[in-house]
Amino acid sequence: MSEARTNPYELGLDKNAANFVPLSPVGFLLRSAAVYPERISVIHGERRYTWRQSLDRCRRLASALAAHGIRRGDTVAVMAPNVPEAFEAHFAVPMAGAVLNALNIRLDAETIAFILKHGGARVLITDTEFAPVIGRALAMLDDKPLVIDIADPLGPHGADGVASGGRRLGALDYEEFLAGGDPDFAELTPADEWDAIALNYTSGTTGNPKGVVTHYRGAYLNALGNILVWGLRQHPVYLWTLPMFHANGWCFPWTVTALAGTHVCLRRVEAASVYEAIERHGVTHLCGAPVVMNMLLNAGAGKLARPVDMMTAGAAPPAAVIGGMEALGFRITHVYGLTEVYGPAVICAWHDEWDDLPADERARLKSRQGVAYPVLEGLMVADPETLAPVPHDGATMGEIFMRGNIVMKGYLKDAPATAEAFAGGWFHTGDLAVAHPDGYIEIKDRSKDIIISGGENISTIEIEDVLYRHPAILEAAVVARPDPNWGETPCAFVTLKDGATADPTEIIAFCRDRMAHFKAPRHIIFGPLPKTSTGKIQKFVLRERAKEGT
Amino acid sequence: MSEARTNPYELGLDKNAANFVPLSPVGFLLRSAAVYPERISVIHGERRYTWRQSLDRCRRLASALAAHGIRRGDTVAVMAPNVPEAFEAHFAVPMAGAVLNALNIRLDAETIAFILKHGGARVLITDTEFAPVIGRALAMLDDKPLVIDIADPLGPHGADGVASGGRRLGALDYEEFLAGGDPDFAELTPADEWDAIALNYTSGTTGNPKGVVTHYRGAYLNALGNILVWGLRQHPVYLWTLPMFHANGWCFPWTVTALAGTHVCLRRVEAASVYEAIERHGVTHLCGAPVVMNMLLNAGAGKLARPVDMMTAGAAPPAAVIGGMEALGFRITHVYGLTEVYGPAVICAWHDEWDDLPADERARLKSRQGVAYPVLEGLMVADPETLAPVPHDGATMGEIFMRGNIVMKGYLKDAPATAEAFAGGWFHTGDLAVAHPDGYIEIKDRSKDIIISGGENISTIEIEDVLYRHPAILEAAVVARPDPNWGETPCAFVTLKDGATADPTEIIAFCRDRMAHFKAPRHIIFGPLPKTSTGKIQKFVLRERAKEGT
Repeated sequence: MSEARTNPYELGLDKNAANFVPLSPVGFLLRSAAVYPERISVIHGERRYTWRQSLDRCRRLASALAAHGIRRGDTVAVMAPNVPEAFEAHFAVPMAGAVLNALNIRLDAETIAFILKHGGARVLITDTEFAPVIGRALAMLDDKPLVIDIADPLGPHGADGVASGGRRLGALDYEEFLAGGDPDFAELTPADEWDAIALNYTSGTTGNPKGVVTHYRGAYLNALGNILVWGLRQHPVYLWTLPMFHANGWCFPWTVTALAGTHVCLRRVEAASVYEAIERHGVTHLCGAPVVMNMLLNAGAGKLARPVDMMTAGAAPPAAVIGGMEALGFRITHVYGLTEVYGPAVICAWHDEWDDLPADERARLKSRQGVAYPVLEGLMVADPETLAPVPHDGATMGEIFMRGNIVMKGYLKDAPATAEAFAGGWFHTGDLAVAHPDGYIEIKDRSKDIIISGGENISTIEIEDVLYRHPAILEAAVVARPDPNWGETPCAFVTLKDGATADPTEIIAFCRDRMAHFKAPRHIIFGPLPKTSTGKIQKFVLRERAKEGT
Repeated sequence: MSEARTNPYELGLDKNAANFVPLSPVGFLLRSAAVYPERISVIHGERRYTWRQSLDRCRRLASALAAHGIRRGDTVAVMAPNVPEAFEAHFAVPMAGAVLNALNIRLDAETIAFILKHGGARVLITDTEFAPVIGRALAMLDDKPLVIDIADPLGPHGADGVASGGRRLGALDYEEFLAGGDPDFAELTPADEWDAIALNYTSGTTGNPKGVVTHYRGAYLNALGNILVWGLRQHPVYLWTLPMFHANGWCFPWTVTALAGTHVCLRRVEAASVYEAIERHGVTHLCGAPVVMNMLLNAGAGKLARPVDMMTAGAAPPAAVIGGMEALGFRITHVYGLTEVYGPAVICAWHDEWDDLPADERARLKSRQGVAYPVLEGLMVADPETLAPVPHDGATMGEIFMRGNIVMKGYLKDAPATAEAFAGGWFHTGDLAVAHPDGYIEIKDRSKDIIISGGENISTIEIEDVLYRHPAILEAAVVARPDPNWGETPCAFVTLKDGATADPTEIIAFCRDRMAHFKAPRHIIFGPLPKTSTGKIQKFVLRERAKEGT
């Protein structure tokens, strides 16, 4: 055979309109509306939409956004709990060619103002419940977005936000905005599947949040990845206990739609309302942080009438919690991921033969983070300097690295952080783990500067920045403290200045005045900080002390 | 808002090794071998492989192919029934960077020679059962491929083809070839997901077969599409009743592997062996043409111990067959597609509320071809001239058009046919259908020149070409004749020359001498052919006559 030869498969077989279409999760909505137009798509209290109606509403919203000047690559922010409008934004915003920026409803005004400015939001769709904090955030901006109010009858102020004590911020009401839209609007399709679809801010490890930019291709693939790993079939009834503003509800707005399932909305995650929804709507699936499991476990409810599948992410659920939940009829699937990889990208894939093991052994196996999603092409625990994989011995620590089609485009307007995250051609998670002999990875230590409390990421550096602003504080270091309910809470170790005094309550109040309340430390411990010979604070020592104090 | 503005999402957020990997179904094998190394991947008679072993064998085969000079874009042909080697080729050939050309084992030597030459096969892996026909085909070629023999102990000649009356063609034996390969071979990944992965010849509507070229992206997506539409979960036990040489077994070598299922091989599809495999291996899924359903239905077997899902494609199964199969415990899913769209691309997606309808109404609904797979972005019935969609009235006929990521690259070395197939930015299926008010499509007439007999496409033009070579025949036209067993069989209408004589038996024998036996007409009807005013033969009249004769 000759060495050089032409490849006949490359001749005259180019892409064309018939055989190449950019991947987009918006197609899932179009298909479900076409095939199952009369099936229920969304339930919220007494409200019901069919897939035909949901498509109609999304097209109207996209059309109205376009009519108000939204163009390709513009940002549309949403501040809302899990209501139908948040769901609709996951389709309508891309249908207008824009990028969805879902805001965490627990953030403080300063952070929201930072995000709106950094992300360049041109439109903000906001639930009237958050009018006070949004009002303060908008006051900080020179260049204000167009504001559209969601006046949810189930919200604390009812449909008429003004009359009942709430406050409308915009000139526009969501339903009126939709009414002015065109239900026959021809949705924009991405020019390239690499185009941005969403912008999600993560607290990261530095004070200012970073804007994770995801793309159509990854959103499409991770939506399918959820189906593959969870064995989802047509028409799941999915309860929205996981916030849609957490990595786009881990892509489940798209996943459930691909299967023409039903989205059951929930403004507030409370045990009674979760159990009521499960009973009333025949919920089959839900997701949530371990704190949600604790809540459901401690509510004193009886066994479920039918089994319900629950996916939980992040901190490994304790064996007792898994066991307790399974006794109630919840089937627990453990996943792990980050906003940078569209939410879960790793799953503790179960082996049938593990069913026969004792309960504590099953729980131990299930508490491991596991293996890559089929749509994540590379996963390894490796030396952070050399990128050499660690031996699969269950003992050698390394950093978790990922590579594949569900890894973000990068951080918005932050080339240094993007370059750092992708150094060496792998995404650096910052999480430390071991690899077991069977290849399953297990996190041994969260990235040193992140606390996960009730499913929210909290940057210890952000808290330390505030502590250092306190006049009595000389030095401060914050670490995670294990908490049976929240998973972790921030614990601050503080050294006071010579002769200064301060008590824990006052320091905590000082923090709460300057940051989102959930980020403020719960415990303050006074004393000198342990340091290395080069003067670096030994956080691992503090983590041990925080643990001992629980 | 200003009219022109830069898009910050396009700045510094390019693809890199961490966040972009070409889609490839080979990754499914790597993952299943990593996560479930000890699960059974392939069963063939008493042979068993685990996923670890299957990966080992595929790497060895890929390595041995590379060692024998196979490079990117080369063609590797396989002539085999559903044996482990045919399965392995679906991964090993792409892992060597080559293109898999699976040959239909029912083809005649002339057609095989044409395909080997046209496709440029450099290697031919062939089961010794087919040594006679392959030997004749090779004799017709100046430039012969490297031949590797599969000596299957379950084949008609046993493991030692020579001693027991079979014939080895190559200097190389498959198992010896593998033994020389490297189990640690680093598989090639596609440079671009648009690269060719397979070459499948279809009889098309002209005499010479056309080479359908498919790509990695489409193979990956259609493999997932099968999972979505069929509700497949982890670890299906899949029985190979559908030939792997039919559009790559409709992508199921990749689909079942993505789920770490078990491939149960079957050299010959006979009712007894199918039922035995179902019972012995706990088969959960299988695919097949309606002729396979007939066979299973008429075998006099009792009700299945557990329900088995069966997917059937092409000609709509008659209501009695569906009803009979369901009474036996088979759950039937009806799909439709073509080799040009990787097999099925349309599914009769079921609605729960249809369960309550009378049996004949259910069968009528199920006999419709249905709606697009989620991975096929466009499907319409339209006027073939204007591409204007027909009204959804269940009455207006049009041609079926498709568009999306599971449409082929095009036909190999056939720019005119490729351009024709993609004219107007849609793939022209050549099949005629109506669209019902609910959007479901229903085929009313097969593409005028194709007969589907026992799951095989037969070109009527190819048969007519042979008939016209008969010295007594003046004119000939072939159409499909409905057949309770085969779905359709070829029926030839013939006008003899003045004074000439010939009888049906002799004409059929004449055809069988000159083409694959399954393509030869089963019925010959003499008489003048009905024509239009412009002299075109009115095949629709002949189709009616053929129907009346059944």
